[in-house]
Amino acid sequence: MIYLDNVAGTKPDQRVVEKMLPFYTEHYGNPSAHFYPIGREAFEAMEAARGEVASFINAKTEEIVFTSCGTESNNLAIKGFLKNPKNTGKHIIISEIEHFSVDSAVTKLINDGYEITKLRVDNTGLVNPDDLKKALRKDTVLVSIQHTNPEIGTVQYTDALGAICRENNVAFHVDAVAAAGFSELDVKALNCDMLSIASQNFYGPKGAGALYIRDGIKLSGLLDGGHQERGYRSGTENVPAIVGMGEAARIAKAEMGVWVPELVSLQKKLWDGLGGMFDFLHFTGNKDRRRPGHVSFWIEYIEGESLLMWLSLKGFACASGSACSSNILAEDEEDLAASYVLTAVGVPNDICAGSLGMSMSKYNTQDDIENVLKVMPETVQRLCEMSPMYNRK
Amino acid sequence: MIYLDNVAGTKPDQRVVEKMLPFYTEHYGNPSAHFYPIGREAFEAMEAARGEVASFINAKTEEIVFTSCGTESNNLAIKGFLKNPKNTGKHIIISEIEHFSVDSAVTKLINDGYEITKLRVDNTGLVNPDDLKKALRKDTVLVSIQHTNPEIGTVQYTDALGAICRENNVAFHVDAVAAAGFSELDVKALNCDMLSIASQNFYGPKGAGALYIRDGIKLSGLLDGGHQERGYRSGTENVPAIVGMGEAARIAKAEMGVWVPELVSLQKKLWDGLGGMFDFLHFTGNKDRRRPGHVSFWIEYIEGESLLMWLSLKGFACASGSACSSNILAEDEEDLAASYVLTAVGVPNDICAGSLGMSMSKYNTQDDIENVLKVMPETVQRLCEMSPMYNRK
Repeated sequence: MIYLDNVAGTKPDQRVVEKMLPFYTEHYGNPSAHFYPIGREAFEAMEAARGEVASFINAKTEEIVFTSCGTESNNLAIKGFLKNPKNTGKHIIISEIEHFSVDSAVTKLINDGYEITKLRVDNTGLVNPDDLKKALRKDTVLVSIQHTNPEIGTVQYTDALGAICRENNVAFHVDAVAAAGFSELDVKALNCDMLSIASQNFYGPKGAGALYIRDGIKLSGLLDGGHQERGYRSGTENVPAIVGMGEAARIAKAEMGVWVPELVSLQKKLWDGLGGMFDFLHFTGNKDRRRPGHVSFWIEYIEGESLLMWLSLKGFACASGSACSSNILAEDEEDLAASYVLTAVGVPNDICAGSLGMSMSKYNTQDDIENVLKVMPETVQRLCEMSPMYNRK
Repeated sequence: MIYLDNVAGTKPDQRVVEKMLPFYTEHYGNPSAHFYPIGREAFEAMEAARGEVASFINAKTEEIVFTSCGTESNNLAIKGFLKNPKNTGKHIIISEIEHFSVDSAVTKLINDGYEITKLRVDNTGLVNPDDLKKALRKDTVLVSIQHTNPEIGTVQYTDALGAICRENNVAFHVDAVAAAGFSELDVKALNCDMLSIASQNFYGPKGAGALYIRDGIKLSGLLDGGHQERGYRSGTENVPAIVGMGEAARIAKAEMGVWVPELVSLQKKLWDGLGGMFDFLHFTGNKDRRRPGHVSFWIEYIEGESLLMWLSLKGFACASGSACSSNILAEDEEDLAASYVLTAVGVPNDICAGSLGMSMSKYNTQDDIENVLKVMPETVQRLCEMSPMYNRK
């Protein structure tokens, strides 16, 4: 199988797995149990991992809070920030193409009296910083805009958006889950106050996420209990996964310089290959500002889901929309093709029946891309013949 | 090292670790990505684990929601239940010796207009079911009482408490985190509507917990996002840990019949040995209704923390209070000896300076207990000599 759905999660690096293993078999202590060696070992390993994660995004060690996943990091950033009595104001700004874990968390806050502005994006998925400037109000308490969109790969002008927030003394949260390991993340350069990442998206294990909370920013925890993570996140820490995340962060910091240019080159090969192949294929997202190794597109009259399944039968694992959306969409089959991200970037829903995403990792090769390019014409041809819409054209 | 702090977490069973490993190295797919094999594999493995966890506690597969830890399960049970508009009523009943993750979650609800009754316990830590009966009001919406107390080992009359709740149509949540793998848990026999367990407490990995939600009970999720776990818990599932939890549940169901009687025998040996050794040693909790392999006590004028540290130097890992409390207590050294559980069971704080817990696992042996019993007299003697309070006696 050729795995091309790395926005849904990457294969953990073998060094990560090896580093984690002893924390299942030998160092199984509870890090809150400082009084004996295997508790302290667990604690110290966790703090070392915190240092690696901090260094990865140019933060201070004490600015990192571990969570269980990217969704929890995003929820903690938004709800935890608003729950803290220090942070007042009833207006929140996000973009219209945020991940579910930001979009639905924020949307539900309407019930608590918050007003939400969802910034429009252009047809490449970019938020215009001027639009953010115009949308800011005196009672704006929080701006949350993703760094990289997992579905269409677009990378925002995060540093410029952050600078506007800082000038206006408004807290700025960045969902960087789809960015970590693919774009350099420097919390200072990005001018952000909070930033979410998830281990599984940069060759670490599932089960660990982190939230950067800039020194001086105050949050309230979402889980009450034993006051772990300085009260920001109660619950016994998932030490093996945290250790794995630390190692993944260390590796990414050291080796991104090698794998990112390679991903950019593979992406160009796939993009150019597909672009030259079909004149009824439309790329989504921004060609220049995008996640390295990420190519997304839709083909007129071809169902994204059907293409996905045919490619799966031929040994390629790709994405339709984001992995997270499949649970919601599955509830109503009629909605399969609908994606609020595609709608936001102006994809016409009369001739578009779903998009496809191919997101590579450092494990992908030139051969992988050549193989995709080899099977695409026959697959698309076949689906065209099967498509009632296409035949009616 | 002889590990005797198994309420803070157990060493994962080797079979659990082996079952998890391929989910880091081969089956690394996102279970929400049903369209290709490695996504489906992850999904199917997760559902198989859900079946094992369900069977372990005599629930239906669809009644199990996976979380990241016991604290999250308890928080979801309490806050998720109250958040759902279907569940009305402003009165909540807990006991005065609940774990932090129940006690502080409930206590904070006072700000939202809830009234809390904390049931007293007798000097062995037991809630009297008649007291629950008397405390119930027309507006009681939820009762949450732990199955087993991690600090003093007491096992409540959970089935009787549950029967009272059911008769009165009040939802009953059971924190069984310290019980799973040590006492048989049958959600039907316990008459409960929700029950929390955590993988790491019964030879599974950290990073996975579960909440049983009885068919018909409605909760709202705490994390918004991709609608995983039928909307009860958004966020990419920690597949390896969930698979490990499933295997731990399977093993516990099959093998508890072997290890529990052994733990009871080790416990008796330790209890009798300590009891015969010092006349100024006081056991805490209930001698008959207690977690197998759990012995807890305090010694007049001896600081629990000092005893803990001396034992640690001699190679024994024991607990003072619960592991979770250490983060809170560390904020104020003066409070080191204070435990609301000890206070609740009437331990006099003028002559008690902290308690000690020894909780065994299936890995402990007769030799381990003999070794503890061997070092205790000299250690206690030494601490007595060092204790200013003791010398003043």
